Amino acid sequence: MGLDGDDTLWQNETRFQLTQTALRDLLRRHVPDADVDTHLAEVEMRNLRLYGYGVKAFTLSMIETAIQVTDRRIPAADLEVILGWGQQMLGAPTELLDGVEAALQDLGRRYQLLLITMGDLFDQESKLARSGLAEMFKGVDVLSEKNVDAYRSVLRRRHIEPGEFVMVGNSLRSDIAPVVALGAIGVHIPYPLTWHHEVIPEDAMPRQGWHRLESIKELGALLDSL
Amino acid sequence: MGLDGDDTLWQNETRFQLTQTALRDLLRRHVPDADVDTHLAEVEMRNLRLYGYGVKAFTLSMIETAIQVTDRRIPAADLEVILGWGQQMLGAPTELLDGVEAALQDLGRRYQLLLITMGDLFDQESKLARSGLAEMFKGVDVLSEKNVDAYRSVLRRRHIEPGEFVMVGNSLRSDIAPVVALGAIGVHIPYPLTWHHEVIPEDAMPRQGWHRLESIKELGALLDSL
Repeated sequence: MGLDGDDTLWQNETRFQLTQTALRDLLRRHVPDADVDTHLAEVEMRNLRLYGYGVKAFTLSMIETAIQVTDRRIPAADLEVILGWGQQMLGAPTELLDGVEAALQDLGRRYQLLLITMGDLFDQESKLARSGLAEMFKGVDVLSEKNVDAYRSVLRRRHIEPGEFVMVGNSLRSDIAPVVALGAIGVHIPYPLTWHHEVIPEDAMPRQGWHRLESIKELGALLDSL
Repeated sequence: MGLDGDDTLWQNETRFQLTQTALRDLLRRHVPDADVDTHLAEVEMRNLRLYGYGVKAFTLSMIETAIQVTDRRIPAADLEVILGWGQQMLGAPTELLDGVEAALQDLGRRYQLLLITMGDLFDQESKLARSGLAEMFKGVDVLSEKNVDAYRSVLRRRHIEPGEFVMVGNSLRSDIAPVVALGAIGVHIPYPLTWHHEVIPEDAMPRQGWHRLESIKELGALLDSL
């Protein structure tokens, strides 16, 4: 059984959005009518093929946005503040979501648990280490992109048949759609916030092969019923 | 058989050092007597536990160094130039070292080849994809740190006994010392430049269990003789 990390086991998007709010406030002191969110989203999408995902990529894109939105007028001291936000995000404690620890303890007795996350290798391993959950996982795979090929190669390498695999996560795009396409079961546990890049329309999803829960606390009962 | 990527199969450190030279020149226009190299090295070491290795980490540390060395006087336009250097490094073609392609073709017929690299997951996968070598590897492991535990877990996961494993790389610290400690064989192929963090004194190395070659072209003959 695979579990996503960010916004499935621990807080992630909240931290990005709080930082983005701080960036908006900072840049509006220089350019009061700047559309910081739109500009940042464009910079992030343009940099995706160079940077990939994660806090370092986000920090570099925030700095680029800050320079461009202010037409290069932003003082270095403000850019130093932005650098510091990135470091705070990377060093912050891993905050587990409600019910995660108990759910994993229960599931770990019945299933082989794999952590399957996406993004920055170093940051993901560091978050796992700080989460206190590392011992509960049989294996950890950090993927640069969660698509059908990436899941297929994880399952192959671990000698797992798709028909006996369940993937649990908060992203329809990254955690559910690709595993359903492989013939595995997806369990979607939405998080209140979703990064724009991860949003896909609900009607683009297959009708079968996945389930939705409100909380990880319900996961054990769902698996019993399958 | 495991092969390192950076400075074993393709150019890496040269690119970092060229960029660092450009940074030195840029910052000396603002602070003529600045000791940029020492300051950057300190910033990189301080950030290692937050950023890990790779070009994104290096770019963030260059920006931090530029701000600090100039006492926050550096204009945003210059920081934008530094951001651009990072993007150029990430997007540049993968330049194979001399003899690599022929050596891998030969070795691939006789051994199962694994690419075992360290650093930024996204960047390493991207470099491999652009190298044209991806098809030659049975597997790829990008590690956040190349120490004894990391190699042990790679070998376990792949059901390889240390006694039948050979690791080839340019770094005594990351490619040779940890595998020799596990009972595997190391083959050191030095690269003319080594990042200060990767340097360990030769007399700290075990006397046996590893070999040194001048070029990957000699690898086939060495393996035949073992």
